[in-house]
Amino acid sequence: MKAVVYKEPFKVDVEEVEDARIQDPTDVVIRVTSTAICGSDLHMYEGRTVAEPGIIFGHENMGIIEEIGDGVASLNVGDRINLPFNVACGFCENCEAGYTGFCLTVNPNGAGGAYGYVGMGPYTGGQAEYLRVPFADFNALRLPGEEGDEFEDDFACLSDIFPTGYHGAAMADVGVGDTVAVYGAGPVGIMAAYSSFLRGAERVFMVDRVPNRLELAESIGCVPVNFDEVDPIEYIQEQTDGHGSDKGIDAVGYQATVSGGEEEQPAIVLNQLVETVRPTGRLGVVGLYLPEDPGAPTEEAAAGRLLFEIGRFFEKGLAMGTGQCNVKRYNRALRDMIVAGRANPSFVVSQDLPLEEAPDAYHRFDQREEGYSKVVLKPGS
Amino acid sequence: MKAVVYKEPFKVDVEEVEDARIQDPTDVVIRVTSTAICGSDLHMYEGRTVAEPGIIFGHENMGIIEEIGDGVASLNVGDRINLPFNVACGFCENCEAGYTGFCLTVNPNGAGGAYGYVGMGPYTGGQAEYLRVPFADFNALRLPGEEGDEFEDDFACLSDIFPTGYHGAAMADVGVGDTVAVYGAGPVGIMAAYSSFLRGAERVFMVDRVPNRLELAESIGCVPVNFDEVDPIEYIQEQTDGHGSDKGIDAVGYQATVSGGEEEQPAIVLNQLVETVRPTGRLGVVGLYLPEDPGAPTEEAAAGRLLFEIGRFFEKGLAMGTGQCNVKRYNRALRDMIVAGRANPSFVVSQDLPLEEAPDAYHRFDQREEGYSKVVLKPGS
Amino acid sequence: MKAVVYKEPFKVDVEEVEDARIQDPTDVVIRVTSTAICGSDLHMYEGRTVAEPGIIFGHENMGIIEEIGDGVASLNVGDRINLPFNVACGFCENCEAGYTGFCLTVNPNGAGGAYGYVGMGPYTGGQAEYLRVPFADFNALRLPGEEGDEFEDDFACLSDIFPTGYHGAAMADVGVGDTVAVYGAGPVGIMAAYSSFLRGAERVFMVDRVPNRLELAESIGCVPVNFDEVDPIEYIQEQTDGHGSDKGIDAVGYQATVSGGEEEQPAIVLNQLVETVRPTGRLGVVGLYLPEDPGAPTEEAAAGRLLFEIGRFFEKGLAMGTGQCNVKRYNRALRDMIVAGRANPSFVVSQDLPLEEAPDAYHRFDQREEGYSKVVLKPGS
Amino acid sequence: MKAVVYKEPFKVDVEEVEDARIQDPTDVVIRVTSTAICGSDLHMYEGRTVAEPGIIFGHENMGIIEEIGDGVASLNVGDRINLPFNVACGFCENCEAGYTGFCLTVNPNGAGGAYGYVGMGPYTGGQAEYLRVPFADFNALRLPGEEGDEFEDDFACLSDIFPTGYHGAAMADVGVGDTVAVYGAGPVGIMAAYSSFLRGAERVFMVDRVPNRLELAESIGCVPVNFDEVDPIEYIQEQTDGHGSDKGIDAVGYQATVSGGEEEQPAIVLNQLVETVRPTGRLGVVGLYLPEDPGAPTEEAAAGRLLFEIGRFFEKGLAMGTGQCNVKRYNRALRDMIVAGRANPSFVVSQDLPLEEAPDAYHRFDQREEGYSKVVLKPGS
Repeated sequence: MKAVVYKEPFKVDVEEVEDARIQDPTDVVIRVTSTAICGSDLHMYEGRTVAEPGIIFGHENMGIIEEIGDGVASLNVGDRINLPFNVACGFCENCEAGYTGFCLTVNPNGAGGAYGYVGMGPYTGGQAEYLRVPFADFNALRLPGEEGDEFEDDFACLSDIFPTGYHGAAMADVGVGDTVAVYGAGPVGIMAAYSSFLRGAERVFMVDRVPNRLELAESIGCVPVNFDEVDPIEYIQEQTDGHGSDKGIDAVGYQATVSGGEEEQPAIVLNQLVETVRPTGRLGVVGLYLPEDPGAPTEEAAAGRLLFEIGRFFEKGLAMGTGQCNVKRYNRALRDMIVAGRANPSFVVSQDLPLEEAPDAYHRFDQREEGYSKVVLKPGS
Repeated sequence: MKAVVYKEPFKVDVEEVEDARIQDPTDVVIRVTSTAICGSDLHMYEGRTVAEPGIIFGHENMGIIEEIGDGVASLNVGDRINLPFNVACGFCENCEAGYTGFCLTVNPNGAGGAYGYVGMGPYTGGQAEYLRVPFADFNALRLPGEEGDEFEDDFACLSDIFPTGYHGAAMADVGVGDTVAVYGAGPVGIMAAYSSFLRGAERVFMVDRVPNRLELAESIGCVPVNFDEVDPIEYIQEQTDGHGSDKGIDAVGYQATVSGGEEEQPAIVLNQLVETVRPTGRLGVVGLYLPEDPGAPTEEAAAGRLLFEIGRFFEKGLAMGTGQCNVKRYNRALRDMIVAGRANPSFVVSQDLPLEEAPDAYHRFDQREEGYSKVVLKPGS
Repeated sequence: MKAVVYKEPFKVDVEEVEDARIQDPTDVVIRVTSTAICGSDLHMYEGRTVAEPGIIFGHENMGIIEEIGDGVASLNVGDRINLPFNVACGFCENCEAGYTGFCLTVNPNGAGGAYGYVGMGPYTGGQAEYLRVPFADFNALRLPGEEGDEFEDDFACLSDIFPTGYHGAAMADVGVGDTVAVYGAGPVGIMAAYSSFLRGAERVFMVDRVPNRLELAESIGCVPVNFDEVDPIEYIQEQTDGHGSDKGIDAVGYQATVSGGEEEQPAIVLNQLVETVRPTGRLGVVGLYLPEDPGAPTEEAAAGRLLFEIGRFFEKGLAMGTGQCNVKRYNRALRDMIVAGRANPSFVVSQDLPLEEAPDAYHRFDQREEGYSKVVLKPGS
Repeated sequence: MKAVVYKEPFKVDVEEVEDARIQDPTDVVIRVTSTAICGSDLHMYEGRTVAEPGIIFGHENMGIIEEIGDGVASLNVGDRINLPFNVACGFCENCEAGYTGFCLTVNPNGAGGAYGYVGMGPYTGGQAEYLRVPFADFNALRLPGEEGDEFEDDFACLSDIFPTGYHGAAMADVGVGDTVAVYGAGPVGIMAAYSSFLRGAERVFMVDRVPNRLELAESIGCVPVNFDEVDPIEYIQEQTDGHGSDKGIDAVGYQATVSGGEEEQPAIVLNQLVETVRPTGRLGVVGLYLPEDPGAPTEEAAAGRLLFEIGRFFEKGLAMGTGQCNVKRYNRALRDMIVAGRANPSFVVSQDLPLEEAPDAYHRFDQREEGYSKVVLKPGS
């Protein structure tokens, strides 16, 4: 089968690889119909991780079941399913408690598995014609409708960005009547804002510096805040009668930059959020922070240690939740919102492309080329 | 009346001061029967804050109502009451939401008021014969029994250390079957461990280096971990099958020291907790972190910015709650536990002393003299 | 001053009564600008309670502060405020826990007080020119803007129907992705459906038999279910793939009728909800059930004992919350939603009338005359 | 293999039956070491259900894995495991949400499956030498130690009575400082009281009429209330300053009797609880209520409809949760409490007996013979 294979920093190819196949009785194999490129794929693409050449990318996958193991109880050939980016067993202590992003079974390297990602276990990615799905009864989310219908790209968002954005809002405990500050208007930040509205937020401030990202945020009802133009802390304080926003979401992570966008300052967004939210506020952090970052500006940052405003954080009695999303906690509800027509996250998708165009798409996406904000690959097309 | 007055760093006196009196119709004045010295009083005593000479100390107060404003609805002269260290109005947005430690009304300097503390509003302390209590209907916790009865010192713990310890356990979401790591076996840490057991913890590890503190922890069922002797991270990992503890509580704060106890390293406990708890764990931080610390070892630390293991924190999907306790959230329940004989926190009280001995007691407590771990002053005696 | 006074069953007059005045230092007096007639006022109006002649009606009140007690800390003459229908002290055990509908201080007859309602304490109603507000710092909700502005009727909904509808959704734990069945399309039921959407419901089924009420429900996005035409249980089961709705809200109460609308059958809605929701579902009951109902069809019903499908309820593992709304739990957030333009509950108001027209309005409302679904009186006009 | 087989009302035999065996790749078979007789087995034994002769009883099972399907990932031959009484798939909507007692996959008759119980799916019971365990990775709870060690009977309580009692306390939201009224001092009621203490209850009132059951309750710290001697409502009101208990647990269900113990009155306990708890209280109902009861005293009761004090329930703003326990929600934590020595539920076990004595044990247990309150069968012995 064909798949997107990592060759070296800044280079992927579409190559013939070994076919995906049933390995355990609880597996299924799907024919992939949609598989998106994620911002976190760029960490590997840019060589800022320890990923080795040969890895098949792709953790935002959906498709049609082609083959089924004889221990699978609830699925049939031909079923249309979406897969969370997390691979999870469903029966370990963490899975049972709903922490499927921290499954203790699937990854010998630590808590939590994923498809096609360095350090996340032995599961190849779905930027390919076929994909093996382990513990399929547990991991598959059933989808109504037909391959390629009007919801295809909405459903494609269920693997990662929609639930991940929602996770930010959930960890920040966004509820009816809340004001929310979201830092970072990439796909996850947009989904965090969108989810905040679904949960009843009164106002959402979106902080970024790229005009077309801010315009997209404004189009869903956010108050845009361009940090090249205003101090976001002051601006949001003013707009909230000097109190600060009730809640805050970090959708940027360690590759944060200061005004102008040139200089990386890994803790700047986190510390801005400490000042942006009001005393007793809560932060949901879905922007990535890593314990090892070879490309970091300082030695401490390279080890994942950042100068954090813990004094102010404590004085204000803040709380924060962090970490990758446990997709299964949210994906049924979000699917139902899509089917009912109350959510259509595919407005963030910038284009659908054949698998063959992946190398070009990676390049343009990595260059932050305008109009390449969220690419969905269509292996069958 | 007599009161404990701050004179200069390392010096308090007992002096005659102006009598406490009704200032607003919603005030009461109590005759103080018990008022404890708190570890956080030492921050002022040592000159590590901007406290000016003349301030009357004391935020852990209880006593008998002597006088009553004519807007007070539920209290009578002669009632025995305990006061939370927080002064709160009861009707602002934060008080309504249960965040009485972050009252928006009582302190012109920011969210949250307290008796006898620098920067916490205009309320004088209770290490005195009498104390004015604002918004008395809201702030007073009624106590059964008689002045000086068997529960006097248990009830004295309700102003701060018992609910503050409990707050740590609550923010860490300690529940039935949890393993908990508490760092810091001072009075608050002991109360955090004690509260963890009340909430159903399976095992509590107590990390400290002072033998008699560890012995006290052991006497209530904790597993003592002396960090001069073992690496607490490794030890607790081993004792929990390599997983780490489910929850963690920081009862040390920014004056943390490394093994040996000499060198301050303000973030060490926080970062040890990041490694101590398991992925998906939660931290409750009640040890103090300040946005300004003139005595800090580095310039960054002096501004409350510490090198925090955010990379590991995120990778493990951790969450943390911080900040001073909202005493009213817990003090009714904890009082009822005392009255029912299911909690007797006064085991942490090291001695009862007359008000006149306050200067000597402060000196010894500040020297960490053995046997001066928690002093309760008795102004009437 | 003029006020709406209950004379005898089916008769109220507008009469001169003693002026509202400050009685306690913590009181304020407002000049009433809006005061709505509530469906529960009809219970008294129809003589189905033990209300004595002479009582002044009105528990949905807002206005401008005219006078202020000297124990009031946060309010000023001229402030525009809305009052929850509950009168609450702010400092008893229940108020502290957020159960302001069950205040232990204000009503000698039991838990919970209200303005102008039999058995709810000594507080006269606000269908009058002026109103005394006890514990004013706690009970007043500050409003922006000016008397009679575009939000006047939206804010008028904050005293009761909007938060009460919201309470139904909150007790049923309605969240993102849920399907909800609301029984009863009166003002509270409409607000329960509206609130369910604010909380992220995927679909809301509204069950009633009056076409214009169902049309109003449909206009806010509900699926209308006319129980004169279809069996609501079967219909909703079909629409939810045979599972039943996730959540259910009873906005009818004990005066429920069977199809056709003639025969009262007090438990019918509650029991229909048991069948309508799916196993593990939750019910929020805001429709009134009373321990004494002189007009009930059976002796048991007259004592508030109804034949309840507890066997099915248990078998399905259902849960339910009941009782009058604790308005303060929700009114800040809902006010903020109004001000931000994300909620405009006044669409349920059928007309604004001068105080003098109250007798006629009561009569028409009691007759369920079309177009008299929610009347707001304007004493000043 | 030998098994306990239901023959006709009031008669079971130990007979040779077909061996338990692997049927699906995700099954295991265990050799049963302990299997308890449950009060709910008596419903079938007494002929008060539609159970047909031939059914093998036993839903409280534990043992050693003998055989393993090839789709099982985490278990090995020789592992010691306990099984929840619920059979659950682990991947349906309800299982994912933690409602394993309402699994949508395992039982064609409705939500929720169990071993050896009428209407709960095709799974034979464990009062036998061997037992087939479906979806074994998900259903098995790993146990430390060795077959027959000191914890054997403690662990045996993990299948049903300990988590079921805990479920009552959890649904009633029992927490630190609460007063709790438990009705029914059978094994589940005792476990509900025991669990209430684990969760921090201040006082637990145990209401029953059988002296030795009340003595057992008193031995774990409960206040015994004999309803043949006092009115439990009045007594508990008096003991709680006229307020009523904070929380209530129904561990009796529909076979409740009035004082004297002769006359069944199915709703009496539920209605007593409505009066026993204070306004804003919560009820956890684990005593069984059935939608069909051929032996009920009235036609309505036979259809599961009981006269319920909904008027008072609503007036007091009560809430209740009901239904069979989702064992997996609690069994890991409770196992850990046992291993840590903080819980030893086996004090409720009245005797261990060989499988062969099951017929006699059923007879004595059904007669409520003193000393036959909780029998654990030991098939291997």
